[in-house]
Amino acid sequence: MQVNGAMLIGAGEAWTERRFSAPGGDTGFSSAGPDEAARACALAEAAFPGFSETDPAARAAFLEGVADAIGEIGDALIERAMAETGLPRARLEGERGRTTGQLRLFAEMLRRGDWADATIDPAMPDRQPLPRPDLRRRNVALGPVAVFGASNFPLAFSTAGGDTASALAAGCPVVVKGHPAHPGTGELVARAVRHAVAQAGLHEGVFSFLPGETNELGGALVADPRIKAVGFTGSRGGGLALMRIAAARPEPIPVYAEMSSINPVILLPAALKARAEALGPAFVQSLTMGAGQFCTNPGLVLAVAGPALDRFVRAAADALAAAQPQRMLTPGIRQAYEQGVEALERHAAVELVARGCVGEGQDQASGALFRTDAAGFLGDQALGHEVFGSSSVVVACRDLDEIARVLAEVEGQLTATLHLDPADEPLAAPLVPLLQRKAGRILANGWPTGVEVAHAMVHGGPFPATSDGRTTSVGTLAMQRFLRPVCYQGLPDGLLPPALRDANPWGLPRRVDGEWRGA
Amino acid sequence: MQVNGAMLIGAGEAWTERRFSAPGGDTGFSSAGPDEAARACALAEAAFPGFSETDPAARAAFLEGVADAIGEIGDALIERAMAETGLPRARLEGERGRTTGQLRLFAEMLRRGDWADATIDPAMPDRQPLPRPDLRRRNVALGPVAVFGASNFPLAFSTAGGDTASALAAGCPVVVKGHPAHPGTGELVARAVRHAVAQAGLHEGVFSFLPGETNELGGALVADPRIKAVGFTGSRGGGLALMRIAAARPEPIPVYAEMSSINPVILLPAALKARAEALGPAFVQSLTMGAGQFCTNPGLVLAVAGPALDRFVRAAADALAAAQPQRMLTPGIRQAYEQGVEALERHAAVELVARGCVGEGQDQASGALFRTDAAGFLGDQALGHEVFGSSSVVVACRDLDEIARVLAEVEGQLTATLHLDPADEPLAAPLVPLLQRKAGRILANGWPTGVEVAHAMVHGGPFPATSDGRTTSVGTLAMQRFLRPVCYQGLPDGLLPPALRDANPWGLPRRVDGEWRGA
Repeated sequence: MQVNGAMLIGAGEAWTERRFSAPGGDTGFSSAGPDEAARACALAEAAFPGFSETDPAARAAFLEGVADAIGEIGDALIERAMAETGLPRARLEGERGRTTGQLRLFAEMLRRGDWADATIDPAMPDRQPLPRPDLRRRNVALGPVAVFGASNFPLAFSTAGGDTASALAAGCPVVVKGHPAHPGTGELVARAVRHAVAQAGLHEGVFSFLPGETNELGGALVADPRIKAVGFTGSRGGGLALMRIAAARPEPIPVYAEMSSINPVILLPAALKARAEALGPAFVQSLTMGAGQFCTNPGLVLAVAGPALDRFVRAAADALAAAQPQRMLTPGIRQAYEQGVEALERHAAVELVARGCVGEGQDQASGALFRTDAAGFLGDQALGHEVFGSSSVVVACRDLDEIARVLAEVEGQLTATLHLDPADEPLAAPLVPLLQRKAGRILANGWPTGVEVAHAMVHGGPFPATSDGRTTSVGTLAMQRFLRPVCYQGLPDGLLPPALRDANPWGLPRRVDGEWRGA
Repeated sequence: MQVNGAMLIGAGEAWTERRFSAPGGDTGFSSAGPDEAARACALAEAAFPGFSETDPAARAAFLEGVADAIGEIGDALIERAMAETGLPRARLEGERGRTTGQLRLFAEMLRRGDWADATIDPAMPDRQPLPRPDLRRRNVALGPVAVFGASNFPLAFSTAGGDTASALAAGCPVVVKGHPAHPGTGELVARAVRHAVAQAGLHEGVFSFLPGETNELGGALVADPRIKAVGFTGSRGGGLALMRIAAARPEPIPVYAEMSSINPVILLPAALKARAEALGPAFVQSLTMGAGQFCTNPGLVLAVAGPALDRFVRAAADALAAAQPQRMLTPGIRQAYEQGVEALERHAAVELVARGCVGEGQDQASGALFRTDAAGFLGDQALGHEVFGSSSVVVACRDLDEIARVLAEVEGQLTATLHLDPADEPLAAPLVPLLQRKAGRILANGWPTGVEVAHAMVHGGPFPATSDGRTTSVGTLAMQRFLRPVCYQGLPDGLLPPALRDANPWGLPRRVDGEWRGA
C-alpha cells in the first residue's frame, strides 16, 4: 500500500490544493475542509441504514477483516509510524497488536450478542385492570460518528483505534479526522479499513478518512447534522471546543472526549517504608514511558512527609537522572511540555527535585520531578493541571487526613493508584470511596500506564478527565457509547428486527420478563 | 399527614416569607430559593457516601417503605391531588398504583442485581508478553440528583415518581423541586418519603423537598456543584434552559429532560379502509385522555388521502364533538393550549375539522382536530411543534412515499405508531427503520398514551423528545441514567466493594471473562 496524501472519501480518493507535511516525511498531505467533511458525512448517512442492521456475525467478520488488513500492511506501517512519531519499534509493534486485538475483541463481543440488550416482556392479555402489551427492546446504532484520532497512540487511539472500532462494532459509519502528526500512518490504516469495507461488500460510506490540520475541519464535522456522536482523544481545550459546538447544534449530540488527567498515586506508609528504593525507579519507569505522553501518566504523587518519602524521592531522582532522553511526538507538544515544566521551575511553592538527561536531535525532552507540600499544592489550582509529558509533582503531606483533603480538591481523573502493604489496608479503606468519586479506575500496587483492553476496563472518569464520566473509551463497554435503546410494542413478528423476532434468528441472549436466557 | 406548606430539608421543616397558593387550595406554600437549595444539596452530599453503598437488599426495602408510606396516606392524597389538578379520581388512583408499583419494581430490580453490571476479568499472571492484572468493574451512583416534577403526572412523574425512584434505586440522594401546580400533593408524598428514610435509618439528606415557583430555584439546584445529574419532565423551553445551565457549569453534568413530542400515528391503507370508523373514536379517546396532557399524546396523524381517510376524519370529528370537556391542570397550561389551537385555526395551510364541547368551570379546554396536506405540513416547521393538550393535525399525503418524506422531516419523538392490517406489512416494513431513528418506541395497532412500566419500555427518544436519546425515564432501564462504571485493578479483596469481592456477599450475578454467571 502506498501513501499519496489523498483524502479517502468512501471509495474515492481526492486531493486538495492546500497541503501539509508530516514530521520526518516528504509527502504533501491534503488538508481537508468543510466541503470534504460534508461529502464524507453524506456518504456515511447513506451507508447507515444498511450497515447498522448488518447481522452481528457479518459485522464481526468485517472487524476481523479490518484487523487482517492492518496486519497485512506489514513493516511499512511500523516504519512509517516510527518516522512520523519518533516512537520506538517495540512500542509501535505492541500498539499494532493492541489495535488489531481490540478489533477482534469487538468481533467476539458482537457474536456473543449481549451488547444488543435484547429484552422481551411478553403480552399479558388477561392482566387486570389492563392487559399488558407485548414489549420488546433492543439497542440500535446512533448514526454516523466522527472520530478524532489522538497524537500519542498513532494506531490504538487513531484511525482504526478504540473509538473507530467501537463505533463500527455498534453499527455506526465512521468519518475519521486524521491526526496531522502522523498522516501517513493514518492513510495506511485508512486504506486497510477501506479495503476491508470493500471485501465485506459494505456500502463505501461506512468509512472515510479526512487528513487535515485545521480546526475548521473538526468544527464542520461535529456540526454536520448527519453526525450523531463524536469520539475524541486529545487536549482539554480541544475537547471543550468540540463539546461547545455539539451542544450548540439544533440537535445536540454526545461528545465522548478523553481530555486530561494527572492520575494521582498515593504511597501509603508501610509500603513506602518497606519499598521506597524499589518504588522510586518503578514510578520513574511509568513516568517516562513513551516520553510521558500517556493520558494515564502519573503526574501527582501523594505521601506522608518523612524519611521514607525522602528515600523514595531520592531513588526516583536518581532513576530520572539516568533515564534515556526521548523524542516527543511533535514540536508543539514538546514546546507545551517545556513551558509547563518551566512554569513549575519558577513556581514559588514548588522545588525542582531532578531533571532527566538532555538528548540530542529532534524534539528531545527530559523528564522533570518536583516537590511541594499540601498547602503549596492547594494554594494554586494550576498545580493540578496536566503537563503532558514526563513531569510529576510529589506532594508531601502531614498525615493521611491531609492526603484525603488534597484528593478531595483534585479534579476528575482517569485513574488513581494506591501503593500499599497489608498493614496499610485500614488506612487505605477510607480513601477508596473518595477515589471512586474522582476516577474511573483505581489501582493497587501497579502503575496507571498500560491500559488493558478487557470487559472490566474503564478508561474514563469524571470531568475533566473525560466529557462524560458514564462511559469508557477502552474495553468492550466502549461500544455502548454508540447505541441507544428502542422499544417495539405489539409489532407483528415480520416487522420486528431479527434481534427480537420470536425465532431469534441471530441467536442472541435475551432478557425475558427480567431474566436472562441464553440463545 | 398534614400539609402545612413547609420545605422539607432533610429531617427539618422550614418556611419562607414568600408564599404561593395551589389551584383550589388555601394553604400558603413556602417558595424556596437558592439558600434552601444549597442547604438541601449540602445534606444530600453528606448522605451520599453512606447511601450509595447501602446493600441492595436494604435499598430495596427502603423503596418498598416509600411505596408503603405513600399508600398509607390513603384517600387524603387522592383528594388533595383532585383538588389541585382537576384530574379525576380513577385516573389518580391508577397513577398512585403506578407510582408505588414502580418503586416496588425497582426494589425487585435491586435484589436481582444485574444493574451493578459486576464484571470480573481475573488476573493472568503467566500471559505473554505481559501478565494481565486482576480487573473488576461495577456501577456506582453518580452523586446527588435534582428532580423536577412534572405538572401532568402529580404522582407518577413528580415527587416520588420515575426520576426519584430510579435515582434512589441507583443510590443517589434526591433533591426534588416540587411542582407549584400541585404543592400539597407534593408535600404529602414528600412527607411519606421522609418517613421511609427515617424508618430505614438512612441519613436525612437522602431526600429533600423544595416547593417553589421560581426559575431561580431551579437554576440554583442545577448549578450547585454537589448535584451530579438532573431529571426533568416538562416543556422544551424549560428543559433547554436547564441543559444550558448544566453545560455551562465548571463541571458539566448530564440532564435527563423529557420535553416535547407530537407522536406521529400512521394509518396504513388496508387498516384504514377496513377500520376507519373504529379507528376514529379510538384515536379521539387517546387524544382527549387526561385533556390531552400526556407527553405521548397523538398530535400528528399521517395517512394517504382518499375516501377511507375521509371516513376516519369524519368518525374522529364526531367522537371529538361528543367528548366530555375537561379541566386542564393550570391556567397557564390552558392559555398555552388555546394559543396553540388559535394559531392552527388561523393557519392558511390548515383546516379546522372539529372542536370538542366547551365546558363550564375552571380551566376547561375542548379538543381540536385539524387537517392539512404534506406540502402544508412541510411548509411550516411550527406545525411540527407540540401543542400541549388535545389538539392533533391530520396530514393527508399523496402516497406512502410522501408519508416517508414527512416522517423524515419530523423531529425526534417519544413514540411513533402504525395502524396496519396484514396486507399493510410490506408497506410498513420500509417505514420501521425510519421510525426507529426518530422515536424511542414504535407501536403497532395501539395508542401511544399509556406507558407500561416494564423492563423493555423506552420512554425516551432523540432530541427534542428528550435531551438524551440514549436513555429512558420509564422502566427499569431508567436506573442506568444515574450510574457510572468504576474499574478496580489489583485491589486486595478487603478493599474491594462487596459487589466485587471473591465471596460475592451481595450474591450478585457477575460477568466473568465475558460470560454471565448467576449468583
